[in-house]
Amino acid sequence: MNSHYEYDVVVIGAGHAGTEAALAAARMGARTALLTMNCDTVGQMSCNPAIGGVAKGQIVREIDALGGEMGRVIDETGIQFRMLNSGKGPAMHSPRAQADKKAYQFAVKHRVELQENLTLRQEMVEEILAEPDPQGETHSEDGSPAPRMRITGVRVRGDAIYRCRAIVVTTGTFLQAIMHTGEAKAAGGRAGEGTTGTLSDSFRKLGFTLERFKTGTPARLNGRTIDHSVLKEQPGDENPVPFSFLTERITQPQISCWLTETNADVHELIRENLHRAPMYSGQIDSTGPRYCPSIEDKIVRFAERDSHQIFLEPEGRNTLEYYCNGISTSLPRDVQDRMIHSIRGLENAEIMRYGYAVEYDFAPPTQLFPTLETKRVGGLYFAGQINGTTGYEEAAGQGLLAGANAALSLQEAEPLILDRSQAYLGVLIDDLVTKGVDEPYRMFTSRAEYRMLLRHDNADRRLTPLGHRVGLVTADRWERHERYEGEIQRALSLLQSRRHEGNTLEEWLRRPEIGWDDLCGFSADVAALEVPDRVRQQVTVEVKYAGYIRRQQVEIERQEKVQSVPIPTTFDFHAIPQLRVEAREKFSRVRPANLGQAGRISGITPADLAVLMLYLKEPRRMAT
Amino acid sequence: MNSHYEYDVVVIGAGHAGTEAALAAARMGARTALLTMNCDTVGQMSCNPAIGGVAKGQIVREIDALGGEMGRVIDETGIQFRMLNSGKGPAMHSPRAQADKKAYQFAVKHRVELQENLTLRQEMVEEILAEPDPQGETHSEDGSPAPRMRITGVRVRGDAIYRCRAIVVTTGTFLQAIMHTGEAKAAGGRAGEGTTGTLSDSFRKLGFTLERFKTGTPARLNGRTIDHSVLKEQPGDENPVPFSFLTERITQPQISCWLTETNADVHELIRENLHRAPMYSGQIDSTGPRYCPSIEDKIVRFAERDSHQIFLEPEGRNTLEYYCNGISTSLPRDVQDRMIHSIRGLENAEIMRYGYAVEYDFAPPTQLFPTLETKRVGGLYFAGQINGTTGYEEAAGQGLLAGANAALSLQEAEPLILDRSQAYLGVLIDDLVTKGVDEPYRMFTSRAEYRMLLRHDNADRRLTPLGHRVGLVTADRWERHERYEGEIQRALSLLQSRRHEGNTLEEWLRRPEIGWDDLCGFSADVAALEVPDRVRQQVTVEVKYAGYIRRQQVEIERQEKVQSVPIPTTFDFHAIPQLRVEAREKFSRVRPANLGQAGRISGITPADLAVLMLYLKEPRRMAT
Repeated sequence: MNSHYEYDVVVIGAGHAGTEAALAAARMGARTALLTMNCDTVGQMSCNPAIGGVAKGQIVREIDALGGEMGRVIDETGIQFRMLNSGKGPAMHSPRAQADKKAYQFAVKHRVELQENLTLRQEMVEEILAEPDPQGETHSEDGSPAPRMRITGVRVRGDAIYRCRAIVVTTGTFLQAIMHTGEAKAAGGRAGEGTTGTLSDSFRKLGFTLERFKTGTPARLNGRTIDHSVLKEQPGDENPVPFSFLTERITQPQISCWLTETNADVHELIRENLHRAPMYSGQIDSTGPRYCPSIEDKIVRFAERDSHQIFLEPEGRNTLEYYCNGISTSLPRDVQDRMIHSIRGLENAEIMRYGYAVEYDFAPPTQLFPTLETKRVGGLYFAGQINGTTGYEEAAGQGLLAGANAALSLQEAEPLILDRSQAYLGVLIDDLVTKGVDEPYRMFTSRAEYRMLLRHDNADRRLTPLGHRVGLVTADRWERHERYEGEIQRALSLLQSRRHEGNTLEEWLRRPEIGWDDLCGFSADVAALEVPDRVRQQVTVEVKYAGYIRRQQVEIERQEKVQSVPIPTTFDFHAIPQLRVEAREKFSRVRPANLGQAGRISGITPADLAVLMLYLKEPRRMAT
Repeated sequence: MNSHYEYDVVVIGAGHAGTEAALAAARMGARTALLTMNCDTVGQMSCNPAIGGVAKGQIVREIDALGGEMGRVIDETGIQFRMLNSGKGPAMHSPRAQADKKAYQFAVKHRVELQENLTLRQEMVEEILAEPDPQGETHSEDGSPAPRMRITGVRVRGDAIYRCRAIVVTTGTFLQAIMHTGEAKAAGGRAGEGTTGTLSDSFRKLGFTLERFKTGTPARLNGRTIDHSVLKEQPGDENPVPFSFLTERITQPQISCWLTETNADVHELIRENLHRAPMYSGQIDSTGPRYCPSIEDKIVRFAERDSHQIFLEPEGRNTLEYYCNGISTSLPRDVQDRMIHSIRGLENAEIMRYGYAVEYDFAPPTQLFPTLETKRVGGLYFAGQINGTTGYEEAAGQGLLAGANAALSLQEAEPLILDRSQAYLGVLIDDLVTKGVDEPYRMFTSRAEYRMLLRHDNADRRLTPLGHRVGLVTADRWERHERYEGEIQRALSLLQSRRHEGNTLEEWLRRPEIGWDDLCGFSADVAALEVPDRVRQQVTVEVKYAGYIRRQQVEIERQEKVQSVPIPTTFDFHAIPQLRVEAREKFSRVRPANLGQAGRISGITPADLAVLMLYLKEPRRMAT
């Protein structure tokens, strides 16, 4: 007799995506199982010991605003907090923190253990179980109709079955994973751990296209053997800003990172050994993250530079292990040894773990709906690196939304789809499902059209109401949020109703040289206003940047108007000679309902869309 | 070009044996590399989250007395301390503590990182490299001479070579490991982790005999789903006693374990499913630890009992995971689910990890000298489960001695071999190399002939001088130790020189009803004596049990006298007709220098020795 278990949602993998997915689904009332190859690696940071950064910090704030855990956990276990770009405009301010890597991962595990409705279990998933869905229909990649399937459960090692109604797959780098260090290759998704091949086979059998990406990680050093006296110290901020809107203050002591850099000797050494790097010898032919390149990539692509910065990041409070941020590599170990020993401060440094690259399967994300459900198999959701992304934050955000959408689908409720104007997470998922990826995708502020709106400081105001609507936000958080919104409105009304030298205080605050403290001098009522600092800061940003913000809102409205232009269901795309053949075929197959949807079809270019738009507006002129 | 590294000592495996081995060798000045498959699992507790217990607690005190780390780490990371058998005589008092499993392992790793002369590195060792040793000679198991080999280094994955002069192998359960849960089998030495096959091949090629043992572990539960209200609470001691002689006091708060038990339903369920247990279905035919049996073994072997106790042990302060001490099992998962749900308090408990058995290779320890160096290959030492033992403490103790002896051999110094009368570790190693093992060996007080001497309270007095001699003990510890010995002598002299009602205070203290407090009433000098509690306790035990202690010392001296009876180098064993043929051959081959050595030869029985002894004493009478 085999074991059978019954759940609403099964989440495969318990990294950053999987834990947020499982917590979200369970919090929304779905009986959820979170399956991991090893309960000891729940929430593990495979690469650098840090959360946040430019655009990524904003994503963490969004995850937090939607009721996710990443922000609270890093607030609790962070060892150094910095607000990046604090000298630039507020849209560029990006929180980042170093984590105590082990404290972080075990805090994530603890939150999973505490969650009602959620079973964490050590299992090796071998197969996705599915059956044809009589109501479903989809199209294969080449345009031919394919029967839509529907998941029924998963089979795990030992032939036990988890029956369920939705599955979220968050396999990270573990699908058919191969690690490379120079000429040496080994199976495994993370050094010292295993891989799974049967799950890739299972996806292929279900008709999914899988492709290969690679990513890499640098060597880890023993801090006892680093000469800190010749390095530049980088301390944390004096007044650390928390990630979570629920964290009042960061009170734990902070510890420093240390800076050094590569030099001409290092670059020469790498150039001499480039033929032994798996990326250049042909041993790896999959694509790596362009914006997080290995040191050998940097040497080749930025040949004119004779130095690259290296951040030596402590991996925790109770370990001497250091992460070498900036010199990710899969060069052979003898080259890694010589490289490290050629760097200032590291002349005698001992490598504890060598850097390596890992190649893994991902499923091109154009196979997904914007809910992160796969088009081919109903009830099957993908999140994180399996969608071709890179980064803990990108993974966690997708996990949260996939888990929420899995739970919503079981409730037969409206899905949670974020617009590009609402969140970086909206930009992320729209980019993935619309454009696909040709390299591991990471977020940048430049990917967001409306980044003046998508600030870290207003993520709760943008998203907590949505999280509340779908049941992701606790009553306590919602109450705090409503109080906060009330305080902002009260403060704003006060500024609008009080005057100084003929102008309202709101008008005064718009001037670059004027701050809240000045207003207190102008009005005793403002000085007497009892609201938290956060409220003053939020009102200040909103007032000062009101012009930019309004312009972006107008642009959004204009876009929405364009995108909502309807396309008649009987419209004959083949009758538009100016359209490329591929575009005509894609439009005919998908039959978009409006211009917005048409523009999001994979492979459709802005030019295709412009042609279609003009034709819809003035069909007669175009036809002549 | 492959990487080459040069070390004095290489330690393979970083569990309880490997970390003590590496720390010992490095502290004694050997340049040491500690190689582990995964730096994140250094010092990991594979099975229950506890250190110490009957006889094992004494071993931890011995490890500590010799400068090892186990005692200090458990003092720092323990969450519940209890002195077992505190109602019995002092020889039975045994310290035991629950550990915060993750805090324990990362504290061990941190100490390794901090150690000068020691390189911790993530590597998969694939082969032991050795060459014929022209000076060496040994004998194969069947008695035929075999050229003795000498190690030259190890080869790791990626074809890098570590050249070295000594190797300590501490592979735990990872050699050719297979895990079993019911009918399901998978390769791996610990759930979620891998195995190594190439190293077993390497040992076989060097001529070692390998055999198979099995061990097992129970399910882990989520404490959120346990009904604590119906369980019996087991708190820690009010005045917790530290393990390490360096720890002044245990100050951290303690948390409770919880007790429940099996019942007739559970036993019936197991009996019904016994044919599906790998130990009974024939799927496993290797031997498991008799004194740490699985629940299915208990049901079979103690068929008359209708209940067995279960200790639910928290795995840490920041996790809800619980270890079910007492119901180790490799029954199929459906049986495990039903079994757990049939136990009081666990009716709704969720299993986070299923129990399993693991089969692994070990090398019968009669292939070792008492230094733990292998007879066959010079410079190669084995410690821990590879020697057929079980238990963290047994492993750590062997590791410490193997590491120390590796370092001593490089200094060409006298080895560190503990006598059966000096330490449980002496008993352990003498049992292993002399008698071998036919089941996983764990320590018991009953294995020690001189257990009145081998108390936990005097481990430092027995062993710290030895540790100091070989360089394992820091100057600070040695100074403290000498001060402590001085205080004991001072206190003892005082008791011998002061009288009350005609008797010395020492004589008074021998009476069962008299304690130190009574002596304070008899003498103002005793009341005024400023010494730590530990000194008073030690003097009290030594005085009260002086009679027993003296008798054991006499016995030791008698034994030593017998064992030191010399055997002439030209002695003709074949001329003793009363000797078994096998004994004659073994004696002729080994040519023991004295009766002690003769008696320790593998396969030599007490009867053989008696014959030899009589012959040496009265050759004429025997010959007639």
